[in-house]
Amino acid sequence: MEFLSRFRRKTWNPKGLHCYITGGSSGLGLSLATRLTEQGAHVSIVARDEAKLKEALEILEAARVDPNQIIKSYSFALNSYDASAAAIDAACVPYGGRSPDALFLCAGSSKPRFFVEMDEAELLDGMTTGYWVQAWSALAASKKMVRESAKGKIIFVSSTLGYMTFLGYASYAPAKHAMRGLADTLRSELLLYGIDIHIFFPPTMYTPGYETENKTKPSVTSKIEEGDSAMTADQAAHALLRGVYKDQVHISSNLITSLFRASTRGAAPYHNPFADACLGIIAWIGVPFWRWSVDAEVKKHRKEHLGYLAQKGLIGEKTVVN
Amino acid sequence: MEFLSRFRRKTWNPKGLHCYITGGSSGLGLSLATRLTEQGAHVSIVARDEAKLKEALEILEAARVDPNQIIKSYSFALNSYDASAAAIDAACVPYGGRSPDALFLCAGSSKPRFFVEMDEAELLDGMTTGYWVQAWSALAASKKMVRESAKGKIIFVSSTLGYMTFLGYASYAPAKHAMRGLADTLRSELLLYGIDIHIFFPPTMYTPGYETENKTKPSVTSKIEEGDSAMTADQAAHALLRGVYKDQVHISSNLITSLFRASTRGAAPYHNPFADACLGIIAWIGVPFWRWSVDAEVKKHRKEHLGYLAQKGLIGEKTVVN
Repeated sequence: MEFLSRFRRKTWNPKGLHCYITGGSSGLGLSLATRLTEQGAHVSIVARDEAKLKEALEILEAARVDPNQIIKSYSFALNSYDASAAAIDAACVPYGGRSPDALFLCAGSSKPRFFVEMDEAELLDGMTTGYWVQAWSALAASKKMVRESAKGKIIFVSSTLGYMTFLGYASYAPAKHAMRGLADTLRSELLLYGIDIHIFFPPTMYTPGYETENKTKPSVTSKIEEGDSAMTADQAAHALLRGVYKDQVHISSNLITSLFRASTRGAAPYHNPFADACLGIIAWIGVPFWRWSVDAEVKKHRKEHLGYLAQKGLIGEKTVVN
Repeated sequence: MEFLSRFRRKTWNPKGLHCYITGGSSGLGLSLATRLTEQGAHVSIVARDEAKLKEALEILEAARVDPNQIIKSYSFALNSYDASAAAIDAACVPYGGRSPDALFLCAGSSKPRFFVEMDEAELLDGMTTGYWVQAWSALAASKKMVRESAKGKIIFVSSTLGYMTFLGYASYAPAKHAMRGLADTLRSELLLYGIDIHIFFPPTMYTPGYETENKTKPSVTSKIEEGDSAMTADQAAHALLRGVYKDQVHISSNLITSLFRASTRGAAPYHNPFADACLGIIAWIGVPFWRWSVDAEVKKHRKEHLGYLAQKGLIGEKTVVN
């Protein structure tokens, strides 16, 4: 496949660059921050909880490889444009106000529940924590980079559930699909300014966020996910950075997500057209079987589910008997 | 292909059923309402503008085929859960409060602009008009149908831009991707209750909404769309209904959208696995060329665009000279 090497994209090295990481105090964000610090980047982490930021900063200090590395943390909520813009401005002060070289937007969380149990506030909140917390940072960063004619990278974090979805994720999957829609739009639009876009689709990760989401997750959703190969945050951070180094636009980190990446590629650039075609063919055969098995699981769960809804008062007892 | 006929899905006939149509006073919604009336359905249309609803009602009355058909219009804003639920409740009064048999969620609009020109309010508004106006109706309808153990259909309207996207659509494409994420989640989850989900991905339609969106559309976005084959609202309504009659979950109505449907199918059910594989192969070869041509168009537009931003005061004049 030597002839393919001419299609290889440019590589990227974070050494000496300013990397700005939201959700940087735990999980994927902290793992990324640690790796980037080990590779000699200047690192700004942003999160809400000051105590967690302090602990994270100690981990980053221990990973420092150069006394001149700038390693800082900032406490901001990122659920509005103004706060997201203020966080970026604060993090740029040590650099004379210059835009970050790369923004890793890892903030986000999920609260799986049945659709009919949810209300307006919960669905809106799902869009905020799954989408807007990254979109506002991207908007603020794009405006700033364009004003300064700065080049750079914006890296979004979606989920395998940005490619496919099933019951339980009516507040999360739409947000993660929206994330993909924004990243794909900006990949095209920010060509106007030389700003690169990447988007990572991690599978289940063993993080504090995962523990929180399991608290509300319907049992049938957990059952469908039983066989999933989850990753640690460190493994996911490694996979994300490998994708960024290879200049991949859509980054997937395990087989199942790669199958869905190849079978839901749309207009997204291939990694390798031949490998992606093979994955696409495997998915063409395998995905219908996966869907049928999941659908069967859902239908099998009907009776138990109606009992659950009656117990919650969402339907009358009589409905269940029918 | 006789042996495939066993895979054919059940067909659907709207005659005598209550069809609830949002965005029903113009464009796709009105065309759908007219066709369904011609086919003997009871029709409720919902929109905001009372004058337009009155005109639409006259068109529907002229299409009536049975003196007992119930044809009514309701004026509601659909941008909140409560209003969306109230609209459904009002439309169900002539049916003794019983849920509609089918909900066609056609409300929505798009305002294409450059990302760096947009602000928080504009992006939030894009999500409301592109996503929430349909999501709230779906939530209210699902809760009501589940309470009544009613079967039925919910039909969402996304866009070709729910499968793929390019510059100019940073407020619209995320919403239409989110629509797909919700529909795919609910296709799985509402199997619990026997509620069917469909989602339509129309290309450009010549409607009043299209004229509005052209007012803000960047010139380079228009240029990329130059060769598109647009449909009339009647053609799109015909295609949507054909898909629903055939029990297709994802419905596409022209070649380009079918190519993207097949190449971004993810876990969505196929129409015909072999036809979809052929479309997928054509897309595998064709889409990269499409993307390269669009990317080239975007890059060619750089200089003109920086002049535009300077004129708007979004960057300094000096930036352009660089």
